[in-house]
Amino acid sequence: MNIGWIGTGIMGAAIAEHLQAAGHALHLCTRTRAKAEQLLAGGAAWCPDPAEVARATEVVFTIVGYPAEVEAVYFGAHGIFSAEKSTATLLVDLTSSPPALARRISAAATARGLAALDAPVTGGDVGAREGTLSIMVGGNADAFERALPLLRLMGRNIERVGGPGAGQQAKVVNQILIAGTMVGLCEALLVAARAGLDQTQLIRLLGAGAAGSWALQRLGPRLARGDQAPGFMVDHFLKDLEIALHEAEALGLKLPGVELARTLYEKARALGHGRSGTQALILALEALNPQR
Amino acid sequence: MNIGWIGTGIMGAAIAEHLQAAGHALHLCTRTRAKAEQLLAGGAAWCPDPAEVARATEVVFTIVGYPAEVEAVYFGAHGIFSAEKSTATLLVDLTSSPPALARRISAAATARGLAALDAPVTGGDVGAREGTLSIMVGGNADAFERALPLLRLMGRNIERVGGPGAGQQAKVVNQILIAGTMVGLCEALLVAARAGLDQTQLIRLLGAGAAGSWALQRLGPRLARGDQAPGFMVDHFLKDLEIALHEAEALGLKLPGVELARTLYEKARALGHGRSGTQALILALEALNPQR
Repeated sequence: MNIGWIGTGIMGAAIAEHLQAAGHALHLCTRTRAKAEQLLAGGAAWCPDPAEVARATEVVFTIVGYPAEVEAVYFGAHGIFSAEKSTATLLVDLTSSPPALARRISAAATARGLAALDAPVTGGDVGAREGTLSIMVGGNADAFERALPLLRLMGRNIERVGGPGAGQQAKVVNQILIAGTMVGLCEALLVAARAGLDQTQLIRLLGAGAAGSWALQRLGPRLARGDQAPGFMVDHFLKDLEIALHEAEALGLKLPGVELARTLYEKARALGHGRSGTQALILALEALNPQR
Repeated sequence: MNIGWIGTGIMGAAIAEHLQAAGHALHLCTRTRAKAEQLLAGGAAWCPDPAEVARATEVVFTIVGYPAEVEAVYFGAHGIFSAEKSTATLLVDLTSSPPALARRISAAATARGLAALDAPVTGGDVGAREGTLSIMVGGNADAFERALPLLRLMGRNIERVGGPGAGQQAKVVNQILIAGTMVGLCEALLVAARAGLDQTQLIRLLGAGAAGSWALQRLGPRLARGDQAPGFMVDHFLKDLEIALHEAEALGLKLPGVELARTLYEKARALGHGRSGTQALILALEALNPQR
């Protein structure tokens, strides 16, 4: 199938390769062409802009960074919706992006006789490479069924969670879960360190019980050895926390835990750790609590 | 072996039964005799006070509620340390209690030629009944080796984590992990509910990924059906959070996440949910965010 691909960052490039490996013909555009070299070498066609991608393909996937980029890709002067004689009839946004924007894209698609899905992913760069992402999909059921064979090349747990925007709302729920867990994890390991306990022992011992979590198991060891390398970056998580707080506000909800996480992650970014992993939250706590 | 047992609440009674089932002769005292009936029917001897328990046994286990009770059991007028002609030479406190108090008990024991261990547990009433608790032990290595065969009748993951008080510090670390996770869990499921998403679907879908935790898996379903029944009670968790904040202060640490959890759990208690499960945190968030 001729498939459009917009966005070849760490996640995007890794996911697109699964489609290419399955024999699909990719037509791609991305901000930094160098990041698409491997896909181009594998036979993908280069397009100058999203509109051109939409004119060359049946299905278009997008996975970019911030909401403003999503907006530009869909609604910009050379965006997907600007395309005359578009051949693409199904648009799937894999970016984590505001639910309201997803609903706006869906409405614009419907107005043009197209279908759109919001389909944010979780599982990080490892999940993208290994094809084990979880994908939360919002949109109508027919469009979901059409996208499913392609989504199955990318991830393992793929479910439609509701209508337009619901996939993004599910991702918001996911990031709120992670925000609370990260605050607890970093506070806990800071106490362990200052108390002179063996963090590695505690991660193993406590991880087997009611305190256990994916974050403790995967990021705990990085914290124990002072490794700030990203699985998932502070800058991107901060974007997601902003989306979560906006969505909460739209629902009439005040979320003090997410607000606290945002404050701490902003501090971590101000300390120069925007491109560190989310475990760098501990550096904000350390700054708040200088060693005596 | 003649074993002393002080405290037969839900946890204490369930754990003591494993010792009795293994053929040990229990000598017990507890505040509410009715709660010991099953153990007494099983052959345990009743003692009027902790001092009497210490005069009748080789090893004494204590598992009571609040720090003031631990203090009374060890240092009170008829406490363990008041016993003339004590035969008990090893004292093991299973209560979750302040690290500083554990160190004070250990020092008092040493001054009398006895050994003491702090050995708080995790795993709740289910773990207590099934003998699958995790036990974090502080104290000297010889005393730990002596206690180990008995602790193995109670739990599955049993490790010495350091000297006197270290077991309690490890428990503090455990409760801090849980505090953050619970704030995230309740905020996330509140958003899911207000957004009209299917909480049960999200618990399954998101639980498989980076947002996964024991709490999401075990308490998520209770939250989804509005079930506030305790695995672990708000009142007890609030006690643990107070201990955690005191210990953090002693270490020179300010922990905004634990402070937030305390504020929310105090609110849940004020709403009449002190004896509900820790998932009742969501009621504090709902009170903060009345439905429009």
